[in-house]
Amino acid sequence: MANYLLTVLLLITSLVRLYAQQAISITAPSRSIVLTVSSTPTGTITYQLSYKSKSVLDPSGLGFRLSKPDVSLTQFAITGIDSSKTDESWQPVWGETNRIRNNYKELALTLTSKSDAGIQIRVRFRVFDDGLGFRYEFPQQAALTHFVVADELTQFVLPSDHKTFWQPGDYDSNEYLYNTTKLSEIDAVAASDREKDTALKSVIGPDAVQTPLLFKTDNGLYISIYEAALINYPVLHLRVNKQTRTLTAQLVPDAVGNKAYLQTPAQTPWRTLIVSDKATDLLASKLILNLNEPSKIGDSSWIKPQKFVGMWWEMHIGKATWEKAGGKHGANTKNVMKYIDFAAKYGFDGVLVEGWNVGWEDWFGNWKEDVFDFVTPYPDYNLDSLTRYARQKGVRIIMHHETSGSVTNYERRMDAAYQFMVDHDINTVKTGYVGRIIPRGEHHDGQWMINHYQRVAEKTAQYKIMLDSHESAHPTGLHRTYPNWMASEAARGSEFNNAPTLGITPEHTTILPFTRLLGGPMDFTPGLFRFRLNQFDSTRTQRVRTTLAKQLALYVTLYSPLQMVADLPENYEKYLDAFQFIRDVPVDWDDTKVVAAEPGDYVLIARKAKGKDSWFFGAITDENSRDLPLPLNFLEPNKSYEATIYRDAANADWQTNPEAYVIEKKTVTAKTNLSIHLAKGGGCAIQFTKK
Amino acid sequence: MANYLLTVLLLITSLVRLYAQQAISITAPSRSIVLTVSSTPTGTITYQLSYKSKSVLDPSGLGFRLSKPDVSLTQFAITGIDSSKTDESWQPVWGETNRIRNNYKELALTLTSKSDAGIQIRVRFRVFDDGLGFRYEFPQQAALTHFVVADELTQFVLPSDHKTFWQPGDYDSNEYLYNTTKLSEIDAVAASDREKDTALKSVIGPDAVQTPLLFKTDNGLYISIYEAALINYPVLHLRVNKQTRTLTAQLVPDAVGNKAYLQTPAQTPWRTLIVSDKATDLLASKLILNLNEPSKIGDSSWIKPQKFVGMWWEMHIGKATWEKAGGKHGANTKNVMKYIDFAAKYGFDGVLVEGWNVGWEDWFGNWKEDVFDFVTPYPDYNLDSLTRYARQKGVRIIMHHETSGSVTNYERRMDAAYQFMVDHDINTVKTGYVGRIIPRGEHHDGQWMINHYQRVAEKTAQYKIMLDSHESAHPTGLHRTYPNWMASEAARGSEFNNAPTLGITPEHTTILPFTRLLGGPMDFTPGLFRFRLNQFDSTRTQRVRTTLAKQLALYVTLYSPLQMVADLPENYEKYLDAFQFIRDVPVDWDDTKVVAAEPGDYVLIARKAKGKDSWFFGAITDENSRDLPLPLNFLEPNKSYEATIYRDAANADWQTNPEAYVIEKKTVTAKTNLSIHLAKGGGCAIQFTKK
Repeated sequence: MANYLLTVLLLITSLVRLYAQQAISITAPSRSIVLTVSSTPTGTITYQLSYKSKSVLDPSGLGFRLSKPDVSLTQFAITGIDSSKTDESWQPVWGETNRIRNNYKELALTLTSKSDAGIQIRVRFRVFDDGLGFRYEFPQQAALTHFVVADELTQFVLPSDHKTFWQPGDYDSNEYLYNTTKLSEIDAVAASDREKDTALKSVIGPDAVQTPLLFKTDNGLYISIYEAALINYPVLHLRVNKQTRTLTAQLVPDAVGNKAYLQTPAQTPWRTLIVSDKATDLLASKLILNLNEPSKIGDSSWIKPQKFVGMWWEMHIGKATWEKAGGKHGANTKNVMKYIDFAAKYGFDGVLVEGWNVGWEDWFGNWKEDVFDFVTPYPDYNLDSLTRYARQKGVRIIMHHETSGSVTNYERRMDAAYQFMVDHDINTVKTGYVGRIIPRGEHHDGQWMINHYQRVAEKTAQYKIMLDSHESAHPTGLHRTYPNWMASEAARGSEFNNAPTLGITPEHTTILPFTRLLGGPMDFTPGLFRFRLNQFDSTRTQRVRTTLAKQLALYVTLYSPLQMVADLPENYEKYLDAFQFIRDVPVDWDDTKVVAAEPGDYVLIARKAKGKDSWFFGAITDENSRDLPLPLNFLEPNKSYEATIYRDAANADWQTNPEAYVIEKKTVTAKTNLSIHLAKGGGCAIQFTKK
Repeated sequence: MANYLLTVLLLITSLVRLYAQQAISITAPSRSIVLTVSSTPTGTITYQLSYKSKSVLDPSGLGFRLSKPDVSLTQFAITGIDSSKTDESWQPVWGETNRIRNNYKELALTLTSKSDAGIQIRVRFRVFDDGLGFRYEFPQQAALTHFVVADELTQFVLPSDHKTFWQPGDYDSNEYLYNTTKLSEIDAVAASDREKDTALKSVIGPDAVQTPLLFKTDNGLYISIYEAALINYPVLHLRVNKQTRTLTAQLVPDAVGNKAYLQTPAQTPWRTLIVSDKATDLLASKLILNLNEPSKIGDSSWIKPQKFVGMWWEMHIGKATWEKAGGKHGANTKNVMKYIDFAAKYGFDGVLVEGWNVGWEDWFGNWKEDVFDFVTPYPDYNLDSLTRYARQKGVRIIMHHETSGSVTNYERRMDAAYQFMVDHDINTVKTGYVGRIIPRGEHHDGQWMINHYQRVAEKTAQYKIMLDSHESAHPTGLHRTYPNWMASEAARGSEFNNAPTLGITPEHTTILPFTRLLGGPMDFTPGLFRFRLNQFDSTRTQRVRTTLAKQLALYVTLYSPLQMVADLPENYEKYLDAFQFIRDVPVDWDDTKVVAAEPGDYVLIARKAKGKDSWFFGAITDENSRDLPLPLNFLEPNKSYEATIYRDAANADWQTNPEAYVIEKKTVTAKTNLSIHLAKGGGCAIQFTKK
């Protein structure tokens, strides 16, 4: 027993069989966070969490109901207590910083079920300065080998009716806007009903919400409930009991209603709470990454962060189509050459080509199994000549594998598809899972699909292919373990700017960093320079709800090692001075400073380019205009920098004047205090170059 | 309109829009069978069938309920009538005869739905001298592209309460004994409850039975209801309404309750009725094969009928185990060498090796997905050295791919697994699907699995691999289209001799040729020479319920181009004189004559060896002893043959004296009338060699 645990723990441990009621506490290294695990006389185990003496979670239950064997694991004797501490640091292959500290205290309790043949589980808690992670482990044991989880009974009991940033719980989609209400005001069905533009919904019920779930408390705390290292297990959604303010795990069922098929030794993902009284610290948390396993990819030299353009947005706005039929096929050889030329001219790494392969004529909505074969281009798409052309131009084509949700079909064809990519000099794939899943009855967020996404990450790595998955489950830091899985969508991305109804609200991108992005990079596809989307269809009324300067700033505030430069070449060429920021902004960083942030309102982040002396800054706001101070104390002291500022013009406004921006240069130092003006729906992007 | 249709049809066709009530008849080439299709004023379409003026089916309904679009297709206008006749013959790659005549009249009715946007379907009837096949076709049309079948409404209305040979309807198993009752006495749940030894059951209900379904009518007809060319569609089971004697199609649902996902142009399998007043003609029917498509395999020279021994029965009787753990692992190098030696010594082609690969320790009952990888031998099984050893001895190892029902796993690994086989000189695979299917919620008999079996047939063909599938759906003549799919189990096979309760009753093998075998060859695994199964476990009371002579005869009466020689080498070496018949009997034939047969009682079949002048004869009986005449008029006239007769001794009896056999030689001609004696549970096997 290590000496850094509280004294009470020492007492309890020695008396573990004497006292029916126990309470075991463990504190974070900085002592800001205290976890207390208690056991009642009947064997109910609860955990509770406080931050600087404020309750984060009141006593909250733990346990499981299994369907095979048919037992409830809810009453336990504590039969083992282990503790340890870790303070280490590690270097990610790519990311927001070049070194990450992993500093926590650990408590592992062995719990022996009182009622069911003495089944043992272990609950492993890790307390960090910025939160808690805990998971269940099922050791190999005679009483339990293969088993089936019917329900996980983990609870999160909140002390008050917090302000909550939430999405409707849904087994198949995470592409919702965030709702901001009191916990007691959650109505997920009503929220879902307002969302008309999501292709596929499987809403769980009025009381179910997704993780990551964000709270802002009246006493000044920011709290995120999420999960880390989601492997071989379904996604964690939550059921809300408004009366008791109790959130209970709602795992995603499979086709027959089971949640997870496991074999000892097994473990759940980590259940995480990130807690801070500073919104900026929550944004900077590396807790999720620290709870993931180190990289499984030995030689990662082939994994390269990149920016790419592509054959994509022009389909969304009606210029072209994915399908060949109809006469507007986008992915034809000539058009793709234009994109290759554009990428080469402006220094981008890749060209995404969607709609290149046979099958798009009836790909959606039919629950069809044999849709695409992933190796047959449309006849007007000469991949062989384009491969040569791209190579000459120093650009790589990015492959698109839309599965249409037919995952059995994709799994049969993955090897051939990846070899086809290798044969055509393509080393990045964007996967898609639009539509109902096959195997029919499975969900995007179920255990079977979670295993599929992992198989794709592993198999692409075998072929040295970088992966960008769309319509996949929410990310949980697995990019640490599989750094070739560079980004995913798994939220409402920029494409929803084209949605006829709700679209991307100005606040959406100020919430994403506090929620979805905690799990990993998002292929949000920023960079839209044309705001009214009637360019090719005059009847379209939908529009992009930002200013141009905000589109630039998103490259900094929404981190991804794969960033699309999403708009049409002709739209960029109208604003080449502003476009320069997108050309210059890196996708890999040595360091990141969250300058200021408030969920739903604004986010200001500065990042230092990987291996360089330059810094980049992005600021975005919601629908409100703001003037905010920008202290430059992140810059190297006593050095002079040229700041190239891309800002909203004084008369800019996302609704009336989104294109109004100003570019100006200033010489600054770490002592300079800038003040930035953000228009309604606006932003500001700055490049700091050391002189 | 061809002149061979009845005159009434000519009249009707010309007046098709004038008369609300129509009746269209078509006769078989020999005029023995008449099909009449009628339409009521409201548009209900029925069909009825007679054989030599005896009703086979009273007016029976046709139609569908779709779930997407949500429509019922039950009221139609007849908007097209086409007819034709065909009389051709074709040569199978292997089989019971070397040439098959395909002679039928066809009527194709275009039916336009009265209620639902004019959806058109076509019902194609083919009337043969020995029965009827009909299928539904869904032409490509604006009103119907992708659609989902909720229910097929095909009926078979019987005129009387026939004697019925039936198995309980089951979505996952066809390994039942046959029950023989009046139609009105069917109770499938009670029958299933008596079956204790089937590993996995999904019984549909008390009123559901499997196809093939066999009737013997009081007025002397034998009728089989079955299906042919089961492609991209679930298995046909039947619901029985005892009051109306109406059988209605019960298709196998998928995980979410749908039956089939189709895209126009699409078609169902053929629904078949084989009818005769001679049981022997029903056995000889080639109707099912004729309704299948010709071979899709261009060069079939690598497809070789074969006999094989193997590492299999010794696991069933407790001598060895599939799994490595426990110390009795059968598939070790030394033991397999013994089988290779045995096969080489006695002239068999293959050695099946089960339990060769890692994974058997927890393969069954856990619904585990990643069970086997199909390429990792147990460490005591040196496949490389055995490959060399088998090649030296002129014997091929036969691969075993037990999937444990985890088909997603198998599909991911099939290419690697088949390449592994090719690399090890193995060109036959026995697949297995023991256990609940993954994708979870799917059934062995559902559309998804039917497509899987077809994929396996196609992919093995690509690798020039012959296929023997176990626990797969009932065969429907697809071995014509995929002649490398040489056999399947898909019924209760000889392994059930080892089952503790019902086992293989003596009558079982006299019913199989009238039911299961109509669809294709069965890997029944005959050839057991030891009848009490306590050889390695003295507590075992189960036994083989035949005489030794019947085991020989089964090689003739149960046709398969893949025949196992199932017993242990040491058991054969005790009866080498009888074993000679198994060594000599072919697995491919020029001709077949069903000498006499009665379902549930006896079967006598003579077959001419492929490309040779010798004939082989097999006779089997049920639990009753019989003396039956055997006219030899199948032999070539005016030639003399040496008959080597393997018969039950006078005192043979399956219960008391199964090993009592007599071998005698006689000189015979086509004019000789032999009389054969079959003991209780006995049989007789004869080889006729031209002098």
